Amino acid sequence: MAINTLGFIATFVFAVTGVLASAPKTQNIFGLIVLGIITALGGGTIRDMILDVPVFWLSNFIYVWIALAGSLAAFVFFKLFQRWVNALLYLDALGVAIFAISAMDKSFAVSPYFGIAVIMGVITGIGGGLIRDVLAGRPTLLVTQDLYASPILAGCVAYVLLSALLANSEISAYLSMLLIFGFRAAAIHWDLSMPDWLNIRQK
Amino acid sequence: MAINTLGFIATFVFAVTGVLASAPKTQNIFGLIVLGIITALGGGTIRDMILDVPVFWLSNFIYVWIALAGSLAAFVFFKLFQRWVNALLYLDALGVAIFAISAMDKSFAVSPYFGIAVIMGVITGIGGGLIRDVLAGRPTLLVTQDLYASPILAGCVAYVLLSALLANSEISAYLSMLLIFGFRAAAIHWDLSMPDWLNIRQK
Amino acid sequence: MAINTLGFIATFVFAVTGVLASAPKTQNIFGLIVLGIITALGGGTIRDMILDVPVFWLSNFIYVWIALAGSLAAFVFFKLFQRWVNALLYLDALGVAIFAISAMDKSFAVSPYFGIAVIMGVITGIGGGLIRDVLAGRPTLLVTQDLYASPILAGCVAYVLLSALLANSEISAYLSMLLIFGFRAAAIHWDLSMPDWLNIRQK
Repeated sequence: MAINTLGFIATFVFAVTGVLASAPKTQNIFGLIVLGIITALGGGTIRDMILDVPVFWLSNFIYVWIALAGSLAAFVFFKLFQRWVNALLYLDALGVAIFAISAMDKSFAVSPYFGIAVIMGVITGIGGGLIRDVLAGRPTLLVTQDLYASPILAGCVAYVLLSALLANSEISAYLSMLLIFGFRAAAIHWDLSMPDWLNIRQK
Repeated sequence: MAINTLGFIATFVFAVTGVLASAPKTQNIFGLIVLGIITALGGGTIRDMILDVPVFWLSNFIYVWIALAGSLAAFVFFKLFQRWVNALLYLDALGVAIFAISAMDKSFAVSPYFGIAVIMGVITGIGGGLIRDVLAGRPTLLVTQDLYASPILAGCVAYVLLSALLANSEISAYLSMLLIFGFRAAAIHWDLSMPDWLNIRQK
Repeated sequence: MAINTLGFIATFVFAVTGVLASAPKTQNIFGLIVLGIITALGGGTIRDMILDVPVFWLSNFIYVWIALAGSLAAFVFFKLFQRWVNALLYLDALGVAIFAISAMDKSFAVSPYFGIAVIMGVITGIGGGLIRDVLAGRPTLLVTQDLYASPILAGCVAYVLLSALLANSEISAYLSMLLIFGFRAAAIHWDLSMPDWLNIRQK
């Protein structure tokens, strides 16, 4: 219930940050709104298509309306949201934590295998942003040094380990979400990036 | 019947315009033909995968042959088609009108919800071009100021409203196709682009 | 059995060449490993989603582990593998031969139509590399002059013709793999590219 409401907020926030991220490349309203919606819904859509379960927004169209509302709001109140961008990044971190761990629960309902769940968590967390960046002509997070995907991966792996250790999947879920949010919030606050030894240097 | 024949013509034209659009970036025959086929079939493929219905060209492979023929023709008679590019744009506008509204009917057969149908109409209309541009390294229509997607969106929304008002879905379909074609043709003829108030200006 | 083992080797090699190909654009470990895995598994994933059969690595997760191992190995022993890049290209050619023809057998199990099988062979052979290049911001093989896709297409068409002529699908499969490997190996060895008459020249 609380998770559901948070999921709605996260969808709204993803759409807003999607529009803000695309705006330097895309100026027209149609493009921005499509990119906002894709940012919010794209990851879960790929997840459901790979798992071969019904795409979530086909039966819960409310997610599309929320993503549309977020994108429109970001377009209309663009300067306002731009000023709030820092607060939005923290909300985005919370959203991605909820989305990734919920995606793992959805995956466990289809297959008990933990590896699949981790992949579905990561895809749900970063898939929408990847499609957005490719369509908008921006470098994807795979090539930048941002610590965006690593917290998601860490949290998804933690959920597997904690579930095994604690034998209580609800507490494990909340702890893993907290890990993703905390790791990501730290990266935002201290402007952390991938440490050098985790990079290949080209000469 | 007539719609079917028009659908074949539209597939052929999409493949041709796909090759013409890709040619500045792609010169080799394999790349051009793949990009032509993707332009013609890509949108419907994504639609069917999201709706989780059998991908249309698996059971109607004739569409692949037509797309292949269009791509090959555009490769062989490249200069000829380049000279005809304006006429082809109008045919493309007609094709996209047919494709988008037919896609909505296909969506209604799976789910009665109008929002899903509008999304499927738009995806079918622009999906192939988006994949083509991403693979060819061109800016997608989401970032340009062309009025390509807006007519499709307008026509898809009109189809929903007209179906409710007229209670005759066939007449509504033709009127909506006419709207898409007319709007798009006007954009081509007068070289219209997105009005300024529908753009975000960066400073 | 032998094909299965070769399939595992091919998956490993694809992940390695995927990391090597992405490294000039992507330096961080997360991005490189995701791109390596996508290179190895992406083509087969699209194939299965279009055919609407269960995605192969959901029930054979060993493929993901092998792709992960290949990507990690390429990250850790980057300079070593870079020195071996030529040998790796030949292994990649062998891998793509196995993948493409095996994909056609998978397609024949779903639909007897040869055209679909050829498309699935090509998608399986080049799909992963296409997604990798799009996500890494590199030009895809559709726009370059490399002879990578043409050998695959030639081999897939040959498999159809040989199966009809020889009425022995196993021998036909091996001959077609040999054709793909030989054609691709020749392209690597003599640095062949698409002949001029198969290119459109822009003026």
